[in-house]
Amino acid sequence: MKQVVTIGGGTGSYTVLSGIKEIEDISITALVSMADDGGSTGVLRDELGVLPPGDVRQCLVALSEHSSIVRKVMGYRFSEGSLTGHSFGNIFLAALEKVSGSFAEGVEVASEILKVKGRVVPITNHKADLVVTLRDGSKLFGEHSFNSSSVQEKGVAHIGYKEEVMLSRHAEQAIMSADYIILGPGNYFCSIVPCLIIQGFKEAIKKTKAKIIFPINLTNKQGHTLGWSATDYVTHIEEYIGRNLDIVLINNEDPTEEQLEAYLLEEGDGVLVVDDYKKENVIRKPLLSHTVIVQQKADTISPLRSFIRHDSQKLALALKGFFR
Amino acid sequence: MKQVVTIGGGTGSYTVLSGIKEIEDISITALVSMADDGGSTGVLRDELGVLPPGDVRQCLVALSEHSSIVRKVMGYRFSEGSLTGHSFGNIFLAALEKVSGSFAEGVEVASEILKVKGRVVPITNHKADLVVTLRDGSKLFGEHSFNSSSVQEKGVAHIGYKEEVMLSRHAEQAIMSADYIILGPGNYFCSIVPCLIIQGFKEAIKKTKAKIIFPINLTNKQGHTLGWSATDYVTHIEEYIGRNLDIVLINNEDPTEEQLEAYLLEEGDGVLVVDDYKKENVIRKPLLSHTVIVQQKADTISPLRSFIRHDSQKLALALKGFFR
Repeated sequence: MKQVVTIGGGTGSYTVLSGIKEIEDISITALVSMADDGGSTGVLRDELGVLPPGDVRQCLVALSEHSSIVRKVMGYRFSEGSLTGHSFGNIFLAALEKVSGSFAEGVEVASEILKVKGRVVPITNHKADLVVTLRDGSKLFGEHSFNSSSVQEKGVAHIGYKEEVMLSRHAEQAIMSADYIILGPGNYFCSIVPCLIIQGFKEAIKKTKAKIIFPINLTNKQGHTLGWSATDYVTHIEEYIGRNLDIVLINNEDPTEEQLEAYLLEEGDGVLVVDDYKKENVIRKPLLSHTVIVQQKADTISPLRSFIRHDSQKLALALKGFFR
Repeated sequence: MKQVVTIGGGTGSYTVLSGIKEIEDISITALVSMADDGGSTGVLRDELGVLPPGDVRQCLVALSEHSSIVRKVMGYRFSEGSLTGHSFGNIFLAALEKVSGSFAEGVEVASEILKVKGRVVPITNHKADLVVTLRDGSKLFGEHSFNSSSVQEKGVAHIGYKEEVMLSRHAEQAIMSADYIILGPGNYFCSIVPCLIIQGFKEAIKKTKAKIIFPINLTNKQGHTLGWSATDYVTHIEEYIGRNLDIVLINNEDPTEEQLEAYLLEEGDGVLVVDDYKKENVIRKPLLSHTVIVQQKADTISPLRSFIRHDSQKLALALKGFFR
């Protein structure tokens, strides 16, 4: 049975996991970024001192084989009273961390309750507070602040953590025994890079015999990666991990005019990632979702959601070809 | 297999259910009062418009056969930030009601997740707001207000609901097919009576062939039932249900001096229920718990807990004798 590891957080991991969950004869481990400090997750981190539950919650739901109502309740956001904006699943993981004494153990209990196929593993057990240094010497503290700041003009000089953030033992074991590692897809600076810079990550990635697959981002982020091409992403990622990617997966399907309009109007040109990739380790497939993302009424804490997304099934179909 | 139905709410039902859960060859249905509007439950009722989760949560935990950590997290109370004082399990049931569209359905989903042995059934699906009329014509609104008011001097003239509150179909079915019905134990005015006054309850209780067992309260409540004897309880209950009780279960074990002191110092004489019961339908057994109840640090919303309690195991042992 092939060991497949995903690395990332949030919506990107949710998408890839939801798709590959259906592939037979593979064993899945989702390594999840712990850098998130925005929205409901940020409030729980601040108020309760817990590790960030949001990204883990999404991965748990993606891999859960429980009834649809149980999966739905995990993502339910309260829209009234003092709980407004909180995702139930985040509160659940926070309570489990409090009761079990560690976030990682809480996640294991949650996995059992939710009948998770595979494993969800926090990439670190340490408190992961991002510190981003810009070229002009100014600093940004925390992922939420980084994510919502326009940094491209000044330029990012360094991304690190406030304190020592080590790869967890379980995450290291998963990387070492993997046959395939899928990096992302996800927000480059805020979901992917925070995983790559964890102490011990580069070493593990160098040692593992796993093939590393990178589904290239579909869109660039305003103020972060505007104008980046496929080659830009690959170059940056390879610099971080200190080795070449094995497979670059690029979408070759055009977005609809409606999808494009939503972006171009809001964010200007340079939003779509141009496919300028020349090397041979590339697979091009139609990977685009045409589902309309409806804003959740109660989602008052983090209202921004993007609209050009990977499609779970198409992504899984493309990936399935490799897992042999 | 004998059908056993418990009726009540909160700690009393938790105690009896935790004990009888271990008895083999019986099928348990817990009918739960929906009148609670205090503490974390009251806040969720007010803010989210959900039915009161607190009593149901305790019954679910009592009957859960999941791991101890899962049972523990259901009762976990947050002690920091905006969630302070909320029980996780209450939030869980509130979210399930929101997602499933009905409290009763939410309770069924929770029962599945928590691997509940038997069934937990809200006694009504209606919004149950108590209205208590005192003899001087003044009114109290809500169980919490009733529970925390001194009403004995003025005298209780009538206990009812603000709107129509009907016995749920599932609750009626459980009563009709029961072999044994255990009323309480519990707070007489605030956990027992709110069940007895539900529309259709008296009719169902009259029709059923079940034997009705009433474990007499151990202590009287200051300002509510101070000075009541075993006979007083039986007389009042029989008046409400319009038929005789089949078995009256009375504790014959003395509380320790330490237990007594805690009560007498705080509440004066008349706290212990005197056993003056003369009829023959009585069983006397040692039923007293000697566990020390430690106040939960985070329990800031509803800080009052009593200390002379029934013991789950002793209660179950006494009841087991009847279930043949």
